[in-house]
Formats: sequence, structure tokens, C-alpha cells
Amino acid sequence: MTDTSFLGALLSADQVSTTTADRDHHGRDWGTPPEEASPPDVVVWPESTAEVADVLAAATERGIPVTPFAAGTGIEGNAVPTRGGISLDLTRMDAVGEVRPADRQIDVEPGVVGAAVDEAVAAHGLFFPPLPTSGDMATVGGMIATNASGKRTVKYGKVGDWVREIEVVLADGSVLTAGTRAAKSSSGYDLRSLIVGSEGTLGVVTRATLALAGRPEQTRVGRATFSTLADATDAAADVVVSGVDVSAVELVDALSARMVNDYVGSDLPEGPTLFLEFQADHGVDEEVEFCRRVLDAHDPTAVLLGSEAAGTDPWEPRRELADAVRAYYPDRRSLHAGDVAVPLGSFSTLVERIHELSEEYGIPLPTFGHAGDGNVHFDVLVDPTDESAVEDAAAVYEEIVTTGIDLGGTATGEHGIGRGKREFMLAEHGETGVETMRAIKTALDPSGTLNPGKIFP
Amino acid sequence: MTDTSFLGALLSADQVSTTTADRDHHGRDWGTPPEEASPPDVVVWPESTAEVADVLAAATERGIPVTPFAAGTGIEGNAVPTRGGISLDLTRMDAVGEVRPADRQIDVEPGVVGAAVDEAVAAHGLFFPPLPTSGDMATVGGMIATNASGKRTVKYGKVGDWVREIEVVLADGSVLTAGTRAAKSSSGYDLRSLIVGSEGTLGVVTRATLALAGRPEQTRVGRATFSTLADATDAAADVVVSGVDVSAVELVDALSARMVNDYVGSDLPEGPTLFLEFQADHGVDEEVEFCRRVLDAHDPTAVLLGSEAAGTDPWEPRRELADAVRAYYPDRRSLHAGDVAVPLGSFSTLVERIHELSEEYGIPLPTFGHAGDGNVHFDVLVDPTDESAVEDAAAVYEEIVTTGIDLGGTATGEHGIGRGKREFMLAEHGETGVETMRAIKTALDPSGTLNPGKIFP
Ligand SMILES: Cc1cc2nc3c(=O)[nH]c(=O)nc-3n(C[C@H](O)[C@H](O)[C@H](O)COP(=O)(O)OP(=O)(O)OC[C@H]3O[C@@H](n4cnc5c(N)ncnc54)[C@H](O)[C@@H]3O)c2cc1C
Ligand SMILES: Cc1cc2nc3c(=O)[nH]c(=O)nc-3n(C[C@H](O)[C@H](O)[C@H](O)COP(=O)(O)OP(=O)(O)OC[C@H]3O[C@@H](n4cnc5c(N)ncnc54)[C@H](O)[C@@H]3O)c2cc1C
Repeated sequence: MTDTSFLGALLSADQVSTTTADRDHHGRDWGTPPEEASPPDVVVWPESTAEVADVLAAATERGIPVTPFAAGTGIEGNAVPTRGGISLDLTRMDAVGEVRPADRQIDVEPGVVGAAVDEAVAAHGLFFPPLPTSGDMATVGGMIATNASGKRTVKYGKVGDWVREIEVVLADGSVLTAGTRAAKSSSGYDLRSLIVGSEGTLGVVTRATLALAGRPEQTRVGRATFSTLADATDAAADVVVSGVDVSAVELVDALSARMVNDYVGSDLPEGPTLFLEFQADHGVDEEVEFCRRVLDAHDPTAVLLGSEAAGTDPWEPRRELADAVRAYYPDRRSLHAGDVAVPLGSFSTLVERIHELSEEYGIPLPTFGHAGDGNVHFDVLVDPTDESAVEDAAAVYEEIVTTGIDLGGTATGEHGIGRGKREFMLAEHGETGVETMRAIKTALDPSGTLNPGKIFP
Repeated sequence: MTDTSFLGALLSADQVSTTTADRDHHGRDWGTPPEEASPPDVVVWPESTAEVADVLAAATERGIPVTPFAAGTGIEGNAVPTRGGISLDLTRMDAVGEVRPADRQIDVEPGVVGAAVDEAVAAHGLFFPPLPTSGDMATVGGMIATNASGKRTVKYGKVGDWVREIEVVLADGSVLTAGTRAAKSSSGYDLRSLIVGSEGTLGVVTRATLALAGRPEQTRVGRATFSTLADATDAAADVVVSGVDVSAVELVDALSARMVNDYVGSDLPEGPTLFLEFQADHGVDEEVEFCRRVLDAHDPTAVLLGSEAAGTDPWEPRRELADAVRAYYPDRRSLHAGDVAVPLGSFSTLVERIHELSEEYGIPLPTFGHAGDGNVHFDVLVDPTDESAVEDAAAVYEEIVTTGIDLGGTATGEHGIGRGKREFMLAEHGETGVETMRAIKTALDPSGTLNPGKIFP
């Protein structure tokens, strides 16, 4: 085990731990099955930028890996150390700083949870639009590091689009301020966007200025169910391409709907369903009716929209989906969590292919996701003790992701590459793409201190 | 003079020129005064990605600088060679490729002019929102390389936000595909955003897939004049912060209004004026009235909005501003073109400071710009033969840009650093920022082939 006693000189005793419990907690994230846990040698909880800088500088000097860790809700093992070393837990750096309503901005430390940003700004009539579904657990630092997104991304964009200025500690302990508080800039290279989505492999975010939007005065929700999956996915793309001002278009396929009904006792129609949300300061009902006309062209079998949906919350069961999927088959587990995104015109093709493969291999593939962004999620559910099923699962997964890339899309719309998707980097980015990324990694972190074993194939 | 005879083996005779006329044309851009012209040794017009790659590989091997050049509408000498070498003119690569309405995307070569993108997609009910004011001259490649923006950026974002996938030739001639056609991605480092705004110093864009928006069904325009500059700038910020769905909020100060009136014989009120535009599929008049209430709180002296503006084009004189400024003082010239952007809450402070400095130094500083983005433009107009005035102009300019940076803003909201703003890089990005950019430049272009003498101080 690495000698990490130098940390005692940099941090106080309650900021360093080598207990098994702490190491285990930092050896897994949400997407890591127990057998793939990989704990760090030591966990540290810095409380300031200076402490982060001290730890990084000292670790780089000694050749010890450092893996940033926050809420651990990542899906791809993003925060799981691959070579022991130090887990740098940012959750104690959770101060909510100044809210500047005149700029529509807020300053926060990286350990602040997404929902806490929303709470802090609500009194000013503002909100933080791109929160992921996990927004009440995931941290600002984790969301920036994965360029997370959420149901409202279809209208408002990704987390990265709402980051203005970030403070970042580099591997050698130097402190970078990237970006600007201005709404736009053409000044030098866009280091902010380079850090966004870099999964803690280029630097540690220690402060962020986030942009905010005005809290819309009107919200409407609804859902529409279709007789075929293609009708649902075509309708989703059509809603967006028609220019409906929609703030969420989420797909839930028939199997996923059934799983939710079984889990929470809801009575969702068990067919391919779109969940919709509309937000505006005025005219939202006009928008809902515009949307209804677009949906109608795809022959929905059940629509609960506008006034019909008043007083109900059609979205409620949708929120239980992740747990419902986990609970449905007691002897199966999701071996691969999908997060493929394609251009909107190819969304139906991709989703259709997922269902074909499910039939072909006899593997349940509950399929859902941020349809308005062309982003599909699915779980490859097999019995992990059945060797041939495990092989089939890998083949199915590879085929789906590769199909997405071939359709002009990406292996991951929002979860990041982590450990789980490194094998697709070459197919997506080509040799020049991967080599260019590697050159940047080497330029910024020549010793390879930060989160080794991630992203690169 | 550099031996560039090797180009004859790579390109046909009509693709290479060393005539004085061609070299001179490529030795200046819109922002370069005659005495700062700096021509290349040779101009080449590649017609394919492969030809760009051949030229770059051969130039890098020989240590010859290559400066990409397109329409030459840059303001900061961005495309002007600083050390001779090759001017790589992209304007012959101007094929408009496939329009994919189902994806709301178009493929284009880099030499396509902005307005041509709009024309190509209009029949599909689509448009390319972030066009700069120079959109009928500037090319896609130039707009990407400077991360250009325009009046509609306040609603729709910058050019970079509408770039999906780009093909980029690196200094060694290898061909990178950066980005994805999907609406979002968390796959590896964001090389697309790194190339956007890099001013041809990291690679040459040879193809781009651009995203498009639905052409709104309703457009309204208008203007509002105020008794004080502070009222106008406060009103501009207030319109945006209040959440008015506005597609342009442009400032023209009293002096600029007078210049336009003199130049085109218009009758704009000669006070600080906001020009406004609203676009939506429906409900646009409701939005105009909402905006009117926000403006009214700042006591406008003249408002031409909604139905009052019907049948007129209040924007028309605004379009002549650039030429009007050039023409107004026969013996003065703009020695420095401003392009500072700050957080919205500081916009009034910055603009007020510009006017104070104008008074203090007795230098006319017509002030205008994309107020809704906190982006101000100004021209420092002095007699270039008056030495002390030239010194004053430099001092005024430095003070304004530094004020913008101190307010949390940026030295350039959209024009780029080029040659003209290198001195501000350290103040804006700090030593770590500049060194990090330099490390990336060295990693991607170790021989320094691409557009040397730009961006870095
Ligand atoms: C039920 C559920 C629903 C989800 N829904 C969504 C969704 O809708 N959209 C979506 O995008 N994701 C979703 N996710 C995935 C996950 O929540 C996101 O990836 C989230 O951004 C991770 O944040 P975290 O704080 O948990 O980070 P962690 O998981 O702890 O870390 C994630 C990555 O960020 C790095 N990191 C963390 N903090 C920092 C820092 N300060 N500086 C540098 N690097 C850092 C880590 O090294 C790691 O690479 C979901 C997850 C779950 C469990
Ligand atoms: C009247 C007027 C109004 C303007 N209004 C605006 C405005 O509203 N907003 C705004 O942002 N700008 C504006 N500009 C500035 C200018 O038009 C923009 O910077 C524009 O993006 C430059 O495009 P171009 O084709 O002329 O590029 P050039 O000036 O030829 O080159 C600009 C930079 O891009 C690089 N480059 C060009 N092509 C490529 C390529 N294919 N690959 C890599 N690098 C390349 C060059 O090396 C150079 O660094 C204005 C200019 C004028 C004259």
C-alpha cells in the first residue's frame, strides 16, 4: 500500500481516513457492481482550494494517483479509483456563495448538491435549469465534470452551458480560473469547456459561477401513449423539430411502464409513452395545444395533456423508474447501462434497433430517456451467473452503442466515459481524436496524477 | 523570402499566387490600418481537405508559418500573417452540403458565407440564428474560428453553440473529427469547443455540421430612446433579467445615433437608444407589451414598438453604423475597436465609464453593441498624426478593457484576440490560464506552424 502519511502534514486528522468503511464507500459509485469495487488507499476531505492544491502538488511529486469523488452517483465508475491512491472527496466544500440576481448568477463550491442551488435562488425568482434526474444527490462538481444534463436540456441545454467561470486546481497544484462571468467571450482557448466533461482527469473544480434562468410563471405537464414504439419516437422527434416550446420530452417504453406500475402500483398505460412538460411566462396553454396537434398526427392511444392533466401529476410514477428497473427481475441485473445519443432524425432507428436486439437475444431491455435530445437509456438485464447470457449482454450492448456512433451520435450523451465506455472511444473519435485528447492530458497532467484509467482506451 | 516552390507539387497553378495584389489582399483584414499590413509570402487556395492536409504537413516539415484566411472581415488582425509564410485561403471550399431537416442540421464547407447558410435552409423553414452583423460577408470557418456572435445571441447563443461536428486539419496534416451530430455528448474532451474560437492557431476547419432553428412565424421590431445613457443601459439589462423573450437588444448611444443620421439622413432620436427584436411562433405581441412595461420603468422619451412600428423598419439606419462611424470625422480614425463584455449587472457601469473617459480625454467614443449580452463596442476616434492623441487613445482603450476585465468580464466578447488584444491576456486569464493555453498550443502544434504571433502575449 502507498505511503500516504505525508497527508497528515497537510490536513487535520478528521480530514484523512484509511478506515475500511470510508475506503469502501469511495471504491464504488452508483454504476459499480460489488465485484468491481476498487477502493482507494486513503480518503481525504479538503475544505479549501489551498488544501486541494496542497494535496495535488504533493501527490504529483510522489507519483500517487488522485481521484476526485463527490456524491458517487456516476453510472460509469467515473469516480472509482483504478489504482488505489487518494480519493479526493469534495463534499465538505459545500458553501453556497453569493447570488447576484442582476447577473442571474450564483457562486458555489463544488460539493453543493444540485437541488441546493435551486433552493438558494428560488427566492430571487430564478432556477438552475439543467439539473439531472439525480439533481437531489449529485453535486455541482460532479455535474460539471460529467457535463450532466436532464429532462429540461431539450429546452435549456446542458450543465456546461450554464457554467460561467470555474476555479480549477491542476495536477501540479496551480490554480486556474477558466471562463468568464460575461455571457460570451472569444478570448483565447475555451479552457472552461475543456474542463467541463473531463471527469476529473484534467483538474479539480473548486469553485463555480453558474448562470441561472428566470423561474417560468406557468408549467404544464402531460403524457401521450402510442400503439407502436416507432409512433412514440417519431412523435418525440416531431415535437422538437416542429418547434414546440417544450421543456421536457421523455420516453418510457412499454416494458419500463409495466415495471413502474408493478413497483409503485400506478396505472400508466402499458404502451410506449412520452412524458411532456411545458414552461413559459405566458401562452403555455397555446403551446400545449400546438403540441397536441403534433402528437395527434402520430395516432396516440391515450393522451393526458393540458386541462385533462390538471390536478394530477402524470410524471410521478416516472420518477421511480430507476428503482423499478432494479426491482423487477429478482435474479437479473443490469450489466450495462445505456446512454447513447444520436441526431434527432435517427432516434427512431436507434430505439427500434434496441427492441430488435432484445427480441433476437431474448434479453429484456427496458428503454427510456431524454427523447427530445435523441438520448436513449436502457438496461441490459441478465442473470449475472449465466455465462452465455453475460456474453450476449456484452454483444448486445456493443451493437447498440456502435449503432449509435454509426448514426452520427455518441457513446454517451451525459454519463461520461468513466471506466465503462473506454472501448468505444476509438470508434467514436478515431485515432486522431483520441491522440489529440491524450496530448492534452499529457500537457496538463504529465505525471498522470488525476483519475488514471479513465476515458482513454 | 521563404522558398515556397514545393507548393507547385501539391496544388495546381491557379491555386498558388505570389502576385503583389494577392499578397496585399491577404496582408490586411477589416481592422488593419494600411501601415500595419503584413503580407504573406504566398497565397494558396486549397479545394479539398486533402489539399489542406498536404499544405500543412509540408509547411510544418519546413518550418513555414501558415495563416488561415477567409473573408478577412476580422477586426483584430486575426487572419493577418505576422511572419510571412503561407496564407491559406479557404474561400474556394464553399460547397453547401446536405440539409437534414429531420435533424435540423446542415453540412457546409468552411468558405460558405453566413448568409448562404440561411438561404440554403430557408426553404425548409429553418434558419441559422447566431449570424454576426457581418453575416453576408463572413464565412463559416471564420465565424467558428472567432466564435462569432450577433444580435440574436441574446436569445439563441453564439456560433459555437450551433456547431455540432467539425472536420479539422491539424498542423501535421492529420485530420480530426471533433464533436458529434447528437445534440449533446459527454464523451471525452470537448475538442470541438477547443477549436471554436482558437482563431486558426490549433487547426484548420475544413467541414462543419451546423445546427439550425425553426424559422419563427412572427417577428416584431422596435426601439426606445432614453434621456440618460444609464437609463438605456439599465433598461437593456432589465429587459433580459426580467425574462422578456427578446431576440435582440442593441444599444446605440447619442453620438452614434447622430453619426447615422448624418450619414444616411435618417431621423433617429439623438439620444441613447435601444433597438429591439422579438421572434416567436405565437404570442409575440404579448411579449412586446411585457417588454414595454419593463422599458416604461426607465422613463423612455420615445418608443416605437409593436403596432406603432408596423410598416416601418426602425433597424434600417442601425445597419449603417459601421460605415457612418468611419465617415463622420474626416480627419480622425478609430485606432482601437472595442469589444468588451461584462456580466449584465455591470453593463451600465462599464458603458458609463466609457463616456466618462470620452469627456476626460476629449476623445469621441461612439458606443454601441449587443447590450443584451453585456457586450459593448466602441471606437476610439483620434487624428492618427497627432502623437499625444494617439497616446491618449491607447490609455483610454487600456483603461476601458481593464475595467471590463475587473468587472468579471472579458477583453473580447466576439472578435477574438488576434494581434490586437494580446496585451490583455494575462490580466484576463492569469499566468496559469495563459500557460495552460500555451501548453495546449504546444501539444497540438509543436512547431508553431499555425497562425503564429496571435492570441499569446
Ligand atoms: C438515479 C440516477 C439518475 C441519474 N440521472 C442522470 C441524468 O438525468 N443526467 C445525467 O447527466 N446524469 C444522471 N445520473 C448520473 C450522475 O448523477 C451524474 O453523472 C452526476 O453528474 C454525478 O455527480 P456526483 O456528484 O455524484 O459525482 P461523482 O459520481 O462522485 O463523480 C463523477 C465524476 O466527476 C468527477 N468529479 C466529481 N467532483 C469533481 C470536482 N469537484 N472536480 C473535478 N472532478 C470531479 C469524478 O472524479 C468523476 O469522474 C443519474 C444517476 C442516478 C443514480
Ligand atoms: C461590418 C462588420 C461587422 C461585424 N460584426 C460582427 C458581429 O456582429 N459579431 C462578430 O462576432 N463579429 C463581427 N465582425 C467581425 C468578423 O466579421 C468576424 O470575426 C467573422 O467571424 C470573421 O469571419 P471571416 O470569414 O471574415 O474570417 P477572417 O477574418 O478571414 O479570419 C478570422 C479568423 O479566423 C481564422 N480562420 C478563417 N477561416 C478558418 C478556417 N476554415 N479554419 C480555421 N481558422 C480559420 C483566421 O485565421 C482568423 O484568425 C464584424 C466585422 C465587420 C467588418
